[in-house]
Amino acid sequence: MKTTKILAISLLLSISLFANDPLPSWNEGSVKESIKEFVLAVTNKSSTDYVKPEDRIATFDNDGTLWSEQPIYFQFFFAIYQIKKMAVNHPEWKTTQPFKAVLEDDFETIKKSGMKGMVKLLTATHSGMSTEEFSKNVKEWMATAKHPRFKKAYSEMVFQPMLELLVYLHNNKFKTYIVSGGGIDFMRAWVPDVYGIPLEQIIGSRGGMKFEMKDGKGILIKQAKIDFNDDKANKPVGIHTHIGKQPIAAFGNSDGDLEMLQYTASGKGKRLMLYVHHTDEKREWAYDRKSHIGKFDKGLDYALDNNWTVVDMKKDWKVVYPFELKN
Amino acid sequence: MKTTKILAISLLLSISLFANDPLPSWNEGSVKESIKEFVLAVTNKSSTDYVKPEDRIATFDNDGTLWSEQPIYFQFFFAIYQIKKMAVNHPEWKTTQPFKAVLEDDFETIKKSGMKGMVKLLTATHSGMSTEEFSKNVKEWMATAKHPRFKKAYSEMVFQPMLELLVYLHNNKFKTYIVSGGGIDFMRAWVPDVYGIPLEQIIGSRGGMKFEMKDGKGILIKQAKIDFNDDKANKPVGIHTHIGKQPIAAFGNSDGDLEMLQYTASGKGKRLMLYVHHTDEKREWAYDRKSHIGKFDKGLDYALDNNWTVVDMKKDWKVVYPFELKN
Repeated sequence: MKTTKILAISLLLSISLFANDPLPSWNEGSVKESIKEFVLAVTNKSSTDYVKPEDRIATFDNDGTLWSEQPIYFQFFFAIYQIKKMAVNHPEWKTTQPFKAVLEDDFETIKKSGMKGMVKLLTATHSGMSTEEFSKNVKEWMATAKHPRFKKAYSEMVFQPMLELLVYLHNNKFKTYIVSGGGIDFMRAWVPDVYGIPLEQIIGSRGGMKFEMKDGKGILIKQAKIDFNDDKANKPVGIHTHIGKQPIAAFGNSDGDLEMLQYTASGKGKRLMLYVHHTDEKREWAYDRKSHIGKFDKGLDYALDNNWTVVDMKKDWKVVYPFELKN
Repeated sequence: MKTTKILAISLLLSISLFANDPLPSWNEGSVKESIKEFVLAVTNKSSTDYVKPEDRIATFDNDGTLWSEQPIYFQFFFAIYQIKKMAVNHPEWKTTQPFKAVLEDDFETIKKSGMKGMVKLLTATHSGMSTEEFSKNVKEWMATAKHPRFKKAYSEMVFQPMLELLVYLHNNKFKTYIVSGGGIDFMRAWVPDVYGIPLEQIIGSRGGMKFEMKDGKGILIKQAKIDFNDDKANKPVGIHTHIGKQPIAAFGNSDGDLEMLQYTASGKGKRLMLYVHHTDEKREWAYDRKSHIGKFDKGLDYALDNNWTVVDMKKDWKVVYPFELKN
């Protein structure tokens, strides 16, 4: 993946520029301090807060926490891309909603089609094929599609400060997991390359799957039915299912992450609960309590009441995206 | 866990007795050869069969493959143990079936209560408590209960040759997973100690879970509903959900493992599909095509037709259980 190289180079660049600072894209201040203090405490063998490497579990939401999520979740951009590509074999879509609206870039009508329309678009693009074919489709989209506002590949729409944080945690023997409402198979197609997190450490929403023997070969066919929606109170469930341990650090940006952070806070010993607050309209987006995507209201109150770490994107981040480093 | 120490000592003993043999409890022959040949091929960098460590995924069924499963699945012995323990707080069980039958060791009536009775017993013992409480219960059972035939702790009813195989694979940088029809939370309470496989590499059947805040602490309450039955065609689904990769080696003992082995066989490159055939009435049990537990019929035919490795327990294993080494 070409974009991976770009990310790797920009990461190396930023690291070598600030050789003694593990988080060079973070401005000095209480947020950066709270992260460093936590990592130092749990990795210091003579500290009462010391945690063995196998228990250094850190969980990250993805949309809005590790990459952007505006104006719509990027997975939905993938669905739109797929519909347009698949349309050659579906002449009926020219006259059937919500497909017609997608083919005509008529976002108003897509919106109006509501949850029912959304399900139709996701079913058409996310089921009825093998897990291998689906992965190939996502990889093709990731390699060619561009974000409408920034004209960058979606793999470049990740947050440089969070990439540095991942590297910092990996270097300190943390095992990092993605715990996202996004589709597990969608993320697996690019997360290892972009975040350096392996397949088995990705937790997400899942559709049903059916095992089939085809020409003597066993394959898994993706089904239309949703099996697990990895959001809100289900995030601790997903964590228990896949990991079986409570995280000692968790990172999110919306009310959908609150239970994951509460679950993390519930364990014994030192914990880090961090929320990314989208406050930078110019470099990224600014939204919180009233947003339809990434609503951050109950979570913001809870974080303030409980002295959790809240990142003010505008104030705490020197750069947002890796491509800014090259400008 | 005391039993772990016993296992560790017996393992060390057997290893030091046969210093150059990674599988000292396996008799020489084609089965032992096929295991060693496979491991040597995929770990040899100059071999065309070489597999990078991160792709050395091996999946093991548990009941009947790593430990015994007769006369009933051991998890069911745990349920019986729990019912008897919980009976103090349930005077109504003295007159309600199938609880009455359990309290009176009336196995005929338990059997007659069928699937409905089974579900009642499992619901009473496997739901309505937090994951932490459940784990504590399983640990207590494991530390005190004895198998009716051998009068040994269940953690000693594991197969010495398979323990050696696990160590052999770990030493060759394989990542080993349990993929069992047994309950994931039941196994997590003892698998890390007994097999050296960490929590996040245990895949099993799952009940529903509900996240709750209790006294400001987030806990997960086990629900009565079954969410995922990790058997037969669901085993490849469980593997995909948790690992996201096809195994290169898989180990089972019954028709319930066939799809897992077929899925493993479907990948490119060298693969090892191994079935344990229970042929030793004297040291363990002998059963296959007609058994109600661990039925091995379709799988046996498929294995023979496809030249998979089939362990003849009586012929291929020098010892079955670790405690035989001390006799």
